[in-house]
Amino acid sequence: MQKKEIRPVSLRDFKVQDAFWLREMELVRREVIPYQWEALNDRVPGAAPSWWMHNMRAAARANAARRSGKTWHISKEAEQMRFQPLPEEGQAPDPDSFYGFLFQDTDGYKWIESVSYQLMRNPGTGLETLAQEAVDAICAAQEPDGYLDTYYTLGVRSRAFSNLRDNHELYCLGHLTEAAVAWHQATGKTDLLQAACRFADYAAGILGREAGKKRGYPGHEIAEMALVRLWEETGEDRFLELAKYFIDERGQEPSYFALEEQERQGLPRPREASAFAYHQAHRPVREQEEIVGHAVRAMYLCSGMADLARITGDETLAAACRRLWHSAVEEKRYITGGVGATHLGEAFSRPYDLPSDTAYSETCASIGLAFFGRRMLQLEPKSIYGDVMEEALFNTVLSGMALDGKSFFYVNPLSCEPEACHQDGRLAHVKPVRQKWFGCACCPPNIARIVSSLPAYAFTVSDDTLWVHLYVAGELTVTLNGEPLRLRVTSELPWSGEVELTVLEGRAEGTIAVRLPGWSREPRVTPLTAATVLIPSDDPETAMDAKGGSERDGYLYMTGTWAAGDSVLMNFDMPVTPLQALPQVRELAGQICVRRGPLTYCAEGKDNGEMLHLWRIPPERVGETWEKTMVIGGVPMIVLEVPAIRTRLPEKEAAPLYSPWTPPDEEEDTLTMIPYFAWDNRGENEMRVWFRT
Amino acid sequence: MQKKEIRPVSLRDFKVQDAFWLREMELVRREVIPYQWEALNDRVPGAAPSWWMHNMRAAARANAARRSGKTWHISKEAEQMRFQPLPEEGQAPDPDSFYGFLFQDTDGYKWIESVSYQLMRNPGTGLETLAQEAVDAICAAQEPDGYLDTYYTLGVRSRAFSNLRDNHELYCLGHLTEAAVAWHQATGKTDLLQAACRFADYAAGILGREAGKKRGYPGHEIAEMALVRLWEETGEDRFLELAKYFIDERGQEPSYFALEEQERQGLPRPREASAFAYHQAHRPVREQEEIVGHAVRAMYLCSGMADLARITGDETLAAACRRLWHSAVEEKRYITGGVGATHLGEAFSRPYDLPSDTAYSETCASIGLAFFGRRMLQLEPKSIYGDVMEEALFNTVLSGMALDGKSFFYVNPLSCEPEACHQDGRLAHVKPVRQKWFGCACCPPNIARIVSSLPAYAFTVSDDTLWVHLYVAGELTVTLNGEPLRLRVTSELPWSGEVELTVLEGRAEGTIAVRLPGWSREPRVTPLTAATVLIPSDDPETAMDAKGGSERDGYLYMTGTWAAGDSVLMNFDMPVTPLQALPQVRELAGQICVRRGPLTYCAEGKDNGEMLHLWRIPPERVGETWEKTMVIGGVPMIVLEVPAIRTRLPEKEAAPLYSPWTPPDEEEDTLTMIPYFAWDNRGENEMRVWFRT
Repeated sequence: MQKKEIRPVSLRDFKVQDAFWLREMELVRREVIPYQWEALNDRVPGAAPSWWMHNMRAAARANAARRSGKTWHISKEAEQMRFQPLPEEGQAPDPDSFYGFLFQDTDGYKWIESVSYQLMRNPGTGLETLAQEAVDAICAAQEPDGYLDTYYTLGVRSRAFSNLRDNHELYCLGHLTEAAVAWHQATGKTDLLQAACRFADYAAGILGREAGKKRGYPGHEIAEMALVRLWEETGEDRFLELAKYFIDERGQEPSYFALEEQERQGLPRPREASAFAYHQAHRPVREQEEIVGHAVRAMYLCSGMADLARITGDETLAAACRRLWHSAVEEKRYITGGVGATHLGEAFSRPYDLPSDTAYSETCASIGLAFFGRRMLQLEPKSIYGDVMEEALFNTVLSGMALDGKSFFYVNPLSCEPEACHQDGRLAHVKPVRQKWFGCACCPPNIARIVSSLPAYAFTVSDDTLWVHLYVAGELTVTLNGEPLRLRVTSELPWSGEVELTVLEGRAEGTIAVRLPGWSREPRVTPLTAATVLIPSDDPETAMDAKGGSERDGYLYMTGTWAAGDSVLMNFDMPVTPLQALPQVRELAGQICVRRGPLTYCAEGKDNGEMLHLWRIPPERVGETWEKTMVIGGVPMIVLEVPAIRTRLPEKEAAPLYSPWTPPDEEEDTLTMIPYFAWDNRGENEMRVWFRT
Repeated sequence: MQKKEIRPVSLRDFKVQDAFWLREMELVRREVIPYQWEALNDRVPGAAPSWWMHNMRAAARANAARRSGKTWHISKEAEQMRFQPLPEEGQAPDPDSFYGFLFQDTDGYKWIESVSYQLMRNPGTGLETLAQEAVDAICAAQEPDGYLDTYYTLGVRSRAFSNLRDNHELYCLGHLTEAAVAWHQATGKTDLLQAACRFADYAAGILGREAGKKRGYPGHEIAEMALVRLWEETGEDRFLELAKYFIDERGQEPSYFALEEQERQGLPRPREASAFAYHQAHRPVREQEEIVGHAVRAMYLCSGMADLARITGDETLAAACRRLWHSAVEEKRYITGGVGATHLGEAFSRPYDLPSDTAYSETCASIGLAFFGRRMLQLEPKSIYGDVMEEALFNTVLSGMALDGKSFFYVNPLSCEPEACHQDGRLAHVKPVRQKWFGCACCPPNIARIVSSLPAYAFTVSDDTLWVHLYVAGELTVTLNGEPLRLRVTSELPWSGEVELTVLEGRAEGTIAVRLPGWSREPRVTPLTAATVLIPSDDPETAMDAKGGSERDGYLYMTGTWAAGDSVLMNFDMPVTPLQALPQVRELAGQICVRRGPLTYCAEGKDNGEMLHLWRIPPERVGETWEKTMVIGGVPMIVLEVPAIRTRLPEKEAAPLYSPWTPPDEEEDTLTMIPYFAWDNRGENEMRVWFRT
């Protein structure tokens, strides 16, 4: 098959009818987005203010003042690049000062992006009015030269772009751009798109390889993939060039971050580039072998790299993407699709270091892994990418949000003892219950934007092919070889693997490729149409399997003339399966976890009593597991009753801490396991994913 | 048996002939003490200076200047209670400034104490001359009013005793006192004893319950047990009273530490006492149920409490000692006799939280546990105290020092991957190789002083009874009922459990009680004398065992007339034994370690290859272990060849990180295990104590 441009479907082209995902999307629309709007406006009682609207409004006033020739008062703290102390209880904030994190502007950008995705699904709701208010505030906050970062606009503007490593201006550019593209797609309005273009042009005027420019690039990546979207949306090549420059320049010697630091602090000599692994700037991206540093940044960078590799056909860059994927997924990934094992730097740890209780596994990093996976699927459709993207979405991404959409996890451990988290500073980063909102509120709006745009992860298309990566029920309109086709997907994933794809309307020649999930041991795909033929056997890369299917890289390719009435029946078996990790993973030696379909399961104290470490699961008996439906947080779901063995506790006081080994005093019992994403929805209690065998 | 004053034997009364311990004591005498003298004088090339002699000499000059009416120059840093910045490379330090930690004075005090113990064993060596130089320096540094802390003497003296919680003056008093008592016992000289008495009197003049005094007590305990020794040495009751006041006042409401902080910092209201658990000052000591906070401090406090409980007969205090012992030993102790599981605050963690790799298990805390154990043996001779004291000494205390006496561990983990320690900030406190010296040099001199005074842990006596707690070979002179008796102990512990105790000279009536070690499954004790009788059966607490022995609390009591030629043969079997932890210990579920006699064993990468977590030990096959002699670091020792099973690593690239469980690919092999104390004497490599079964 020749190389084709593969892109996600438009959210407009898919009508979600999926019981599971529609509920999540509606939760975001009804709960998360309105709550976040209140948060952006500092109107949530008892929650830390976001300061987003405050900062935007103040920046607009600063611009207006400066336009009319007035001097804008800058606080002493801002003068010294220190943060404004928060107002004392009962005191009003200084209306002219910037509050919150350096990257606070992005809170609202992400919110606008989520709203836009929801508007594509449900146009004309009142959300557009709210979002327009936010968009107007942003446009008013933009400085006349295109610069847009309220921290500097309200502080010492002359120091803008003097600390790209730490000060997140290009991160703000990236999120602004993502929001602007989504807002444009949803409403056709160009206001925010122009703001993003102007800020991008401002950045391009300062940064680059040309004489007189700084050779800077983002300290926190995202602008790379955002600028690709801006290029796609506007067709303006200069945005693609800027993205490419950011990718290519990153990690070159002499290190820009080091030079910048030297200049800023008057250091005698710059540091080596290798000091900047946290930022993935320790060496040029094409030379990076291992995924390192801040996990969200790393995943965002890789997403941008995969975009660029696809668009430019740069095989060296594609190879780097594959290496970094392998490093992230096959050496540093949790079985929940979480990445970033250490809270120190919110970062990837060394290979195979995957502790359960001190895990960081930030929700946003898992979202980033899904971004990366989707882009690898655009680069080269292989089911390994789809498997991991699906795993991340169904497990850690959803774990990040309570089933009622009202509280959130930033950190997603694989075992949790609430008492330990409360008492132990070594677990200070692990919260045993989801939080309403965070000062650093990156995760909740990030969940909102990925859930709201789920169809873009489920389906990609090229001129003549539709790829189905995730089996999300709904109606899809695609164009194959210029002919429109309307299809229906029925699916009850993640609970059942029976999927049907039916052509409702139209007639088109082309290929439909369906992912054969890695979790299905005997996937059966039956095209119920004479028109479809399996992909030609003269393609040497395509093997015909025993059932006559035509499979390549984990996708079944079906080519022919598709017309109303055609359908494809799929039956992906999802046996309850004990999984093991490679022996290299110290933490998991002699342990298993339980998987069913795309869902990783966990046990909670609520169902099983505390001290979950007393249980072990004989792997050969997992097949006897009894599946039943239980309602958790109002959501019916399949829970597992797994045959297991529990060690009895000795009588208190009787036994010494250490004693000669005796055969363990154990009893057979049934361990109730629930989907990992549903944990901690019934009050604070113990949780555990991995069990001794 | 009526209550008797039980005291350790004098070091003068025991001539060490024990192959194992004599080597350690000589190592301290020949390597550690001379090295530390150089360190105290900042003469070790490449090592961080101790500043001890520097500070003492500067303080002496300050005193002389003030005596002659001159103003002593105080640096700006000292004025503001900040530390003096260390001199730049090649620059001379400011001769008048204090350098180092607040408690730097104690480095030299501990050194003098070690030297004194060595002098009791080997009088008249050149060490006395060196130590006299140190003693003279201390006496000259003492201020005319008795105050002795060079940090304040060289800084703002008027702020002395204004921050007892953090600033360690009473900790310095404690170590000064320990040194003074030892120096007096060793040399008969009263110079340092007088200095200690004067400083103690100074403290008593300021602190106490009387009107006008501050109700303060030590932020870092040790003065409590040191003042008891000062009372024993001088007979002056006021020192016992001061110790008692410190113990009784600790943790009372309103919290002195809180009041002091409020006064110092002008806080609006004082904190609750509960904030001071780190200092064991969260509630009165008699009400403490759980051992908490900084482990060394906790152990030193408990040692002082046990002293006081014995001397005053305070049953409530004794009960608190027993509770805290139980909490420390049966809920929070490593199988190596280490305590203090978390590096955060160098502290006890919650019950049963005993991680192997992130363990703190500070050498000094284990020394403190031995202090506490010896004092509990003086309070009530029960073998549980002796077992744990022996475990601490043979494992963590000795692990703290390299076999060549030239480098030291501060932290003693139970598993160690050097690469992880190098790369992972979460393990920053764990050093995979022993260090030459530490800026905070508490552990090396603490090892020196306990090893040098080992006989005081091996034997205690009352008027009519000798207790043998540790079987250390040598010749002992004791007085039973006024009659002297010279005895010889022969022993090859920790390698063999055959022990003989022979009366060489004298004739006395009385009791000899020998500890039946907890690690011996079938201890056999045979008195080869008609004179000894087993303790009378009219003592209801004493049970006669099946072999006719008379055992109470794990000691065999033998009473009669002892005369030259009498002997007791003991055979303590020491089978290689797999030990398990209580199921409550999450970290150790399904794991065992290997013990032989008092020694905990570990495996090193050196003998077994890296990735020690791939090994498991079937407990039922530990009995087939083959014992052999190996020389490590010049020391012959019994190492174990344990039947074990190793998981094979899959072919690289072939296997995914997670896969459906299959029976493990394993092979039988032999795991070489060495005594824990001997680990890391053959270069940096992996180590592990606990193994899956």
